[in-house]
Amino acid sequence: MSLTACLIVIGNEVLSGRTQDANTVFIAKRLGEIGLPLREVRVIPDIADTIISTVNEMRARYDHVFTTGGIGPTHDDITSECIAAAFGVPWEKEPAVWARMEAYYPPGGFNAARQRMATMPRGAVIIDNGHIAPGYSIGNVHVMAGVPSIMRQMFEALIPRLPAGDPVISRSVHATGLPEGDIAAGLTEVQARYPSLDIGSYPYFREGQGPGVAIVAKGTNPAEAERAIAEVAALFRSLGSEPLAGEPPP
Amino acid sequence: MSLTACLIVIGNEVLSGRTQDANTVFIAKRLGEIGLPLREVRVIPDIADTIISTVNEMRARYDHVFTTGGIGPTHDDITSECIAAAFGVPWEKEPAVWARMEAYYPPGGFNAARQRMATMPRGAVIIDNGHIAPGYSIGNVHVMAGVPSIMRQMFEALIPRLPAGDPVISRSVHATGLPEGDIAAGLTEVQARYPSLDIGSYPYFREGQGPGVAIVAKGTNPAEAERAIAEVAALFRSLGSEPLAGEPPP
Repeated sequence: MSLTACLIVIGNEVLSGRTQDANTVFIAKRLGEIGLPLREVRVIPDIADTIISTVNEMRARYDHVFTTGGIGPTHDDITSECIAAAFGVPWEKEPAVWARMEAYYPPGGFNAARQRMATMPRGAVIIDNGHIAPGYSIGNVHVMAGVPSIMRQMFEALIPRLPAGDPVISRSVHATGLPEGDIAAGLTEVQARYPSLDIGSYPYFREGQGPGVAIVAKGTNPAEAERAIAEVAALFRSLGSEPLAGEPPP
Repeated sequence: MSLTACLIVIGNEVLSGRTQDANTVFIAKRLGEIGLPLREVRVIPDIADTIISTVNEMRARYDHVFTTGGIGPTHDDITSECIAAAFGVPWEKEPAVWARMEAYYPPGGFNAARQRMATMPRGAVIIDNGHIAPGYSIGNVHVMAGVPSIMRQMFEALIPRLPAGDPVISRSVHATGLPEGDIAAGLTEVQARYPSLDIGSYPYFREGQGPGVAIVAKGTNPAEAERAIAEVAALFRSLGSEPLAGEPPP
């Protein structure tokens, strides 16, 4: 059984529809590449009880938990004190981060709000990506910023500390003019022959060309994924549709 | 206490990073507009036990549960039978949908795969949006397609059946060249004066202009939100930054 991961997206702005979450796609892809597949995402509000209980449930259930959001300086940034509460440890000055932030800002600039960003759960291990206010890991929970550009830097800096499994690879084929319902029976048989692959079927529509379908096989064995996709291509041909390599252009 | 909603996004393709979920933003905004705010989103894989347990947990916890994904014709579309299992009811032929799909397809076209789309939990109430294979509601659970264009049609057709509360409105202001950490203390005071508003602070970065910050006040009382935003604008001015209406352009 491979190791598992989940992501907790913390932020009212995603639940209100103000912000399109862009972190899930990035983290999902990168975790697949290092063989630590993402199994669940939860988007939760900036409410302390919810954050604490979700973190505790997820860190018991998954090998690694990633959080994004809520580590900035403002009143709605409450992730860090909630992580401390979830672990039952003090939320306290992190001396190295404190010292470097104090040195970074002009006199008076390292105010109470910014001091919150240098206050962390006891036992936190900094994710040092060069950003003035870093993320951190505690136990199996990795706490990152919500701003995508900063989150990505933190995630890349974190990768060397994560366990690496077999990378998840994918192979795909598609056909335009072929409705999904026509291939379902044959596709079920292909999936049955390759139980270790995750074969997904994704319909699409192109103006004037009618329905099409893309088939994606994911797994850790490239040769097996290629064989399965070759069988799907043969299925397409048997239905009179020309298989096209990869996924359709967006 | 207003009614609450949650969304369950069902699909390996979101967890693998293949697909950028676009349904959350749409559903979140529309639910805010009708006063049935979204409180949680879960993204889960196409695994029967996970779907069943998540649906049962969420339908007990929230007033309304929306699901997207997994109601197509292929082997990975298992949402419907899982919903039936979650409610402990048979998954059976829905006569009206069955008849109309049978009439729609050419002879032989209404195959076993498509018949799955006319098979629903007993007690399902169709969401009739004109799409050949409809979504449905059962109890407080609303089951919709994952393809965004189809999901949106289903959601709009569902709206008349949903309870309407006070719409969530938002007012906003932003300033470029003003770091979030400089306004945090003043913003905490504004939030404290308007406990019924949800005031969010969202930093942004513009090449060559340095950091900026957008403040968004959400609630059900427009006058109150406008007063709070006026106070934030005054805070910006007191720090030497010109408040700009609304949110910054993307």
